[in-house]
Amino acid sequence: MLPEKTIQRLSKYRRLLANYRYVREPYIFSHDLARLLNLNPVQVRRDLMLIGSPGNNRKGYNVNELIELITKVIDTGKNTNIIIVGFGRLGQAICNYLNEHQEFQTVVAAFDVDVNKINREFPGVFCHDIGKIREIIQKKQVAIAVLTTPDDFATDMANILIESGIKGILNFTSVQLKTEKSVYVKDFDIITTLEEIGYFASIM
Amino acid sequence: MLPEKTIQRLSKYRRLLANYRYVREPYIFSHDLARLLNLNPVQVRRDLMLIGSPGNNRKGYNVNELIELITKVIDTGKNTNIIIVGFGRLGQAICNYLNEHQEFQTVVAAFDVDVNKINREFPGVFCHDIGKIREIIQKKQVAIAVLTTPDDFATDMANILIESGIKGILNFTSVQLKTEKSVYVKDFDIITTLEEIGYFASIM
Repeated sequence: MLPEKTIQRLSKYRRLLANYRYVREPYIFSHDLARLLNLNPVQVRRDLMLIGSPGNNRKGYNVNELIELITKVIDTGKNTNIIIVGFGRLGQAICNYLNEHQEFQTVVAAFDVDVNKINREFPGVFCHDIGKIREIIQKKQVAIAVLTTPDDFATDMANILIESGIKGILNFTSVQLKTEKSVYVKDFDIITTLEEIGYFASIM
Repeated sequence: MLPEKTIQRLSKYRRLLANYRYVREPYIFSHDLARLLNLNPVQVRRDLMLIGSPGNNRKGYNVNELIELITKVIDTGKNTNIIIVGFGRLGQAICNYLNEHQEFQTVVAAFDVDVNKINREFPGVFCHDIGKIREIIQKKQVAIAVLTTPDDFATDMANILIESGIKGILNFTSVQLKTEKSVYVKDFDIITTLEEIGYFASIM
């Protein structure tokens, strides 16, 4: 198992390389990769060595080969299907953003309780009744859920997700989810993060 | 200075209390606050004691008084004006979300380079030419910037923000900003976070 920080950097390398692929050279130097992401070149070379990339001092790294290699490491050949749970403004925005910017994971369904949203096709995704969530998670072999429900429903929804086989949750609610060993949870509460920034910014 | 985690919990208490205020009782018990946020009641009481709330064993905490007290602590009486830098889909979604859900901080301006967006009124915010950013930061005494530009512009924009007096940045790009002592930066890269979740979910 690789450390969290290494996975995060590999993800950033892959994204940059994927953009690079379309517009520039078939090769990239580690110092360019480092410069574009504001990282230390030694760190970049160490990461790429760690995942077994040979590199090439004269020409740099082959962009396509490096993308493939990183994909093998971080996607581990498993499925990377995502669902959005709670299809309000934030859920819809995240869905659109992922559809436009994320080529290595796929949003396969959205869920809500609002009758005006359910059984409707939205740009890039179909919104289902929340009651169908277990069935669709299993049918589409979903691994990851983005949780953007109102806070009141967060705990119950998380339990349903975990019972249905979800292994990873990105939690945008302000509710602390009970940590289960069988699921990997990352919390991101935008408002709390901004208030934390406000506090530390104000005392600087 | 309070620890990061304490500030985060205080922010969550305040948000919950602000919703509570409108619909329910003028008092709340610490164990209800704890239950609704999935936190330990002892932790909640310790946090509230730390900021000097007297509490009341029989009736619980006075909701309005507690909101005021938390506000005094985490907003420190300073301004809490926010700008959105890069007004693409993600920037717009965050702006809408904050306008709808955030009552203690205010989005005062958005900035972009796209001629189709600049000098236009959007729901809840006006989008300015990025060239006006220094002037508006100073005029509106902006403390916090939400950075949602494309990666290529992240470093340059962050430098301009810091030079213009911004003290806190929420960075949604995948570029690591150079840490300056005079500014408090939090990074949140949605795609990298989801890829990290994907990796750890797949090996569970």
